Amino acid sequence: MHKIVDGSTQILGVVGDPIRQVRAPEVWSALFRANRFNAVCVPLHVTPAELKTFLTGLRTIQNIAGLIVTIPHKLAAVHHADILTERARHVQSVNVMRRDEDGRWRGDILDGIGFVKGLLSRGQRIEGRRALVVGSGGAGTAIAFAIAEAKASSVHVSDIAADRASDLASRLEAAGIPSGTSAASARGYDLVVNASPIGMKPDDPISIDCTDLVREALVGDVVVHPQITPLLAAARERGCYTQPGIVMMDNQLTAMREFLRFPDGDYTPAAVARVPAA
Amino acid sequence: MHKIVDGSTQILGVVGDPIRQVRAPEVWSALFRANRFNAVCVPLHVTPAELKTFLTGLRTIQNIAGLIVTIPHKLAAVHHADILTERARHVQSVNVMRRDEDGRWRGDILDGIGFVKGLLSRGQRIEGRRALVVGSGGAGTAIAFAIAEAKASSVHVSDIAADRASDLASRLEAAGIPSGTSAASARGYDLVVNASPIGMKPDDPISIDCTDLVREALVGDVVVHPQITPLLAAARERGCYTQPGIVMMDNQLTAMREFLRFPDGDYTPAAVARVPAA
Repeated sequence: MHKIVDGSTQILGVVGDPIRQVRAPEVWSALFRANRFNAVCVPLHVTPAELKTFLTGLRTIQNIAGLIVTIPHKLAAVHHADILTERARHVQSVNVMRRDEDGRWRGDILDGIGFVKGLLSRGQRIEGRRALVVGSGGAGTAIAFAIAEAKASSVHVSDIAADRASDLASRLEAAGIPSGTSAASARGYDLVVNASPIGMKPDDPISIDCTDLVREALVGDVVVHPQITPLLAAARERGCYTQPGIVMMDNQLTAMREFLRFPDGDYTPAAVARVPAA
Repeated sequence: MHKIVDGSTQILGVVGDPIRQVRAPEVWSALFRANRFNAVCVPLHVTPAELKTFLTGLRTIQNIAGLIVTIPHKLAAVHHADILTERARHVQSVNVMRRDEDGRWRGDILDGIGFVKGLLSRGQRIEGRRALVVGSGGAGTAIAFAIAEAKASSVHVSDIAADRASDLASRLEAAGIPSGTSAASARGYDLVVNASPIGMKPDDPISIDCTDLVREALVGDVVVHPQITPLLAAARERGCYTQPGIVMMDNQLTAMREFLRFPDGDYTPAAVARVPAA
């Protein structure tokens, strides 16, 4: 019999709404298999109104190895963790949670780390760039702070919810990073990031106006499906270096394994690719 | 990449304490794969004190396909279902739950059906037998009522918790079935069932005294690991027909699929055996 799961299997949950598009269940379940760690990653579809009740119930499950938190729960999860890493406190957003030895649930945010690591590992430079981040939710906030940490000269913010954009800009400025709100236009920027869900649906417009996008700009997107969003397609036409959402995700894997304290092993995209087909 | 789970996967949970010994995750995950139904069965380790909180949280998960309830939660789960099948009301025990269209959670008990079906499908006769059931928890109660339904002439009950045994005996008598409490001895019975956990641990004593066990008796056990408990070994020595716990489990599969309204397919042990090895 093909053994997929047994009574000793640990569970890594991923909670979101919607959930069908999340890649974590495939990727992490394959990584666990590649590293012979008896665990499985399962999608958990929960609405925002029920997040608190869900998390209260989740704490009762003793074989939960951790929880990945995705859209739209990253901001709310801050209020349901017992303890936050310094980074998560700063960003006020959580994309991963674990149970500590004392039973408390600890939240961290690794989205920004994955985005920055993706660019730097390909030899791209962030230092000195004028950045625009469109979308000021969990991922956008994490990326804005991570880009700032990587020494961008300024980080501007755009959001259809104007008050949310100005709130993030204020927090960046309070942390000593030149910031402000902006239109969703690439004009005047050389690091352009879509951190909004725009581009997921087939009929979505382009997330950022690329009329004045310069060839020297780096352009990244957090959207995973489709891999090439209208934004990235427009940026490639202009000859820009582009980073699809999957690259940010892949670069989070190792950081997430460390935070979740899974057994040592190879938790890179290469390990996923090596898992044999059925 | 070997795809085990993805964002569209439905979850069948199995809740128990302890959990490592449960076979449902292996069996059901293999059945789902054999029938190309995108679902996975995962173990959920929850203590009795936290069952209510756990179930409240579980209700918030939209892609839960159902919940299998095992030791020690089968009695308590009765109080956490919104609606019970007639059978579960009678037995006052639940081993499977599903969400109805109106959002209510419905509980049923299929343990007894599996036990009886296991014997009848092998051409064994239950009608007219004097039965002893040792253990009056969820499985024991379900088996006692199912044996009675299958027209045993009497169903006696034994339990180290004497008050629980006499409670079950009273309920059987109230339902018109000759009953009473008994010592855990095969003397005077020709259908002998261990429905207690005794036999799971390596040092466990025999669950039922077999000194006076007759060759014509049928002897069944609910314990799954080990497959041959001290009780079944003693019964085989005397030439009795024996039914290991795994047979009861296997015979529940089809009934459970129907209750959980999974897509049509082959949900028999044969289908599990046909799933190719990795």
